[in-house]
Amino acid sequence: MIAPRNTPAPTRPRAEVDEIAAVVDAVRVAAPLTQCLTNSVVTGFTANVLLAVGASPAMVDSLEEGPIFAGIADGLLINVGTVNAATVEAMLATAASRAAAGRSWCLDPVAVGTLPVRTKLARDLLEYRPDVVRGNASEVLGLFGETGAGRGVDAGDDVDSALDVAARLAERTGGVVAVSGEIDAVVSAESPTLRIASGHQLMTKVTGVGCALGAIVAAYLPVARTPHLAAAAATAALTVAAEEAARRAAGPGSFAVELLDALARVDSETVTANLDLR
Amino acid sequence: MIAPRNTPAPTRPRAEVDEIAAVVDAVRVAAPLTQCLTNSVVTGFTANVLLAVGASPAMVDSLEEGPIFAGIADGLLINVGTVNAATVEAMLATAASRAAAGRSWCLDPVAVGTLPVRTKLARDLLEYRPDVVRGNASEVLGLFGETGAGRGVDAGDDVDSALDVAARLAERTGGVVAVSGEIDAVVSAESPTLRIASGHQLMTKVTGVGCALGAIVAAYLPVARTPHLAAAAATAALTVAAEEAARRAAGPGSFAVELLDALARVDSETVTANLDLR
Amino acid sequence: MIAPRNTPAPTRPRAEVDEIAAVVDAVRVAAPLTQCLTNSVVTGFTANVLLAVGASPAMVDSLEEGPIFAGIADGLLINVGTVNAATVEAMLATAASRAAAGRSWCLDPVAVGTLPVRTKLARDLLEYRPDVVRGNASEVLGLFGETGAGRGVDAGDDVDSALDVAARLAERTGGVVAVSGEIDAVVSAESPTLRIASGHQLMTKVTGVGCALGAIVAAYLPVARTPHLAAAAATAALTVAAEEAARRAAGPGSFAVELLDALARVDSETVTANLDLR
Repeated sequence: MIAPRNTPAPTRPRAEVDEIAAVVDAVRVAAPLTQCLTNSVVTGFTANVLLAVGASPAMVDSLEEGPIFAGIADGLLINVGTVNAATVEAMLATAASRAAAGRSWCLDPVAVGTLPVRTKLARDLLEYRPDVVRGNASEVLGLFGETGAGRGVDAGDDVDSALDVAARLAERTGGVVAVSGEIDAVVSAESPTLRIASGHQLMTKVTGVGCALGAIVAAYLPVARTPHLAAAAATAALTVAAEEAARRAAGPGSFAVELLDALARVDSETVTANLDLR
Repeated sequence: MIAPRNTPAPTRPRAEVDEIAAVVDAVRVAAPLTQCLTNSVVTGFTANVLLAVGASPAMVDSLEEGPIFAGIADGLLINVGTVNAATVEAMLATAASRAAAGRSWCLDPVAVGTLPVRTKLARDLLEYRPDVVRGNASEVLGLFGETGAGRGVDAGDDVDSALDVAARLAERTGGVVAVSGEIDAVVSAESPTLRIASGHQLMTKVTGVGCALGAIVAAYLPVARTPHLAAAAATAALTVAAEEAARRAAGPGSFAVELLDALARVDSETVTANLDLR
Repeated sequence: MIAPRNTPAPTRPRAEVDEIAAVVDAVRVAAPLTQCLTNSVVTGFTANVLLAVGASPAMVDSLEEGPIFAGIADGLLINVGTVNAATVEAMLATAASRAAAGRSWCLDPVAVGTLPVRTKLARDLLEYRPDVVRGNASEVLGLFGETGAGRGVDAGDDVDSALDVAARLAERTGGVVAVSGEIDAVVSAESPTLRIASGHQLMTKVTGVGCALGAIVAAYLPVARTPHLAAAAATAALTVAAEEAARRAAGPGSFAVELLDALARVDSETVTANLDLR
């Protein structure tokens, strides 16, 4: 069990926290089949995270199978973390198929801004209007054409510096932009920006934790009432589980293990009790 | 040490359990070099599982190197979990090389039935007569052209519903069909069907446990007297280790870690003491 | 904390140990951005190892992005563990770009000698003069055209049998050859050969530990004063951490977890106290 902390979120209405928390339980009932076209570094960890939150992962990522499966899967993640000529083609065709089916998906623009191939790809993918874009501040800035301070996958910019660009991006896609950092932000055209201060610094010491958030968002989208709730609930589940995992961990190796265990236990009750929503 | 449970297998002769269990020790002595052409999600976990059971893994999976290495390797696994145009070609050429060399191999038809490319590939691979086909019920049905209830990698059908098709498939390949599920089945043309009730539900909460079984089968094939014994012993080692791991685990993250530790310890004695063979 | 063992290194001057150990701390301050073109089995583990030692990993490995990023990254690893036509091209172009920029890099010739494609590739890569070649004895022999006893990724030869060839190879590249085995060797044209007897047998039971050493070398190269020091310090950090991890582990699964935790803690003090340098 994840022990409740008994410190209620200070500034947000209780009903909002409850609605976010309820998504975490609903996903375990729905077990959404979640397709991932993701980078080669995190495939296994991503699949294990999806299993832990109650989704059913399917890493169907080729040009030949990706677009077909995008018509079947409940959720879809496209993460541009390692791309080449073949994966660019597969991702574009899969996103096109998904958009044609009118179904939700999440884009994770890993390291966009620093490298030309993935930057062009991510911008092209925006045309298929992802319901949620999930990235760190540097990636969100890079996606919109701003020159951030990112090098590789680590953010060189803080969340606050990307909020304006995130709002403009959300307006353009008509969806949500979830900016990860010390205090995460969920930005959308139609709802006030949420800030989530839960989480732990060890999340930056395990590869694929950010990518896993994108996958959780993808799994939550077909279950939550709105993309805004999906992004908020995914961030809530991951950061609350991460705090619990950090209390048990002795370093990044044991943190990754504890994180999967904590994600398998996290539910509406522990989210409600522990989420630091602002 | 894995503690003996002291409940003898109820219905099967002791000699049969002993012969299955002996394979587990023999593999640790032989250290079979085991080539894997497997999916991108489970490469690392599969290699670690093979090391834990005493085999020597080699993920030589390209069109350029796979067919050559198939003439050197003691064992061979082909798993179609993530396929594209390039991997289809590599797998067919490697299977052809293996068949030409007259050496054993195991086919894992992941998610076959739902997706056209891998379904055709797996059926084409059957022509090279795998000694063991290892899959869940939906995959075995899908391989034979039956429409199962599988979606993605999870079985939508139970093992019993696939037994007839497994028997026909075994007759056609002249080999063994190992059907994974709550009570596993090892079906072959020449031996009575074995059922193995050992195992734990956490095996379905870690990605690649099913795929790891295929790899263990591939490693056991060159050592065991028959493919039937190889499939039975691989299932026995994995499920007995999984029960031990589940007793120590607090969730899917720690289960995966404990499973590798338990697999590194499992031996003929613990298999004999704990296997629930029916 | 990793407990000091209080057995000073017997034969080497204290100043040498201190200079090696200092690199371990310096890397945590510099956080070198370390690009890896590595094999598909170990991408995630490699990235986690790099994070644990204080580097910033970036698995930018395509033909399209690899050569560009090689001009930005502080460190670069090329590991030929799983190669195909596309990755061969990407690796050659990235090494050429790196050499043109006059920056350091590390080559890991996994399983070279047994398989023609990677053997030719690794020899072609030598033309770009890697600052450190990191391999086991069979791979070092195979790289130089000697027929070793290696099969797949495991060494069939011991370190001593490769020392002469390593010296000739170091002379040819003008760099360092780090030979891994029971007692590791760091061989270079300009410095006396170092031997490091730290480490633990469990390192051979987890996939990617050898590959991780290549990645650590790549991360240490831009920070250390010489390639010789980088190779020595990387070997020191990994083997000292491995001894600590082995004391806490119950098998290969928990060893991998403990190794990441220990790598995140290892520092100049624990290296100085525990390194068995000869």
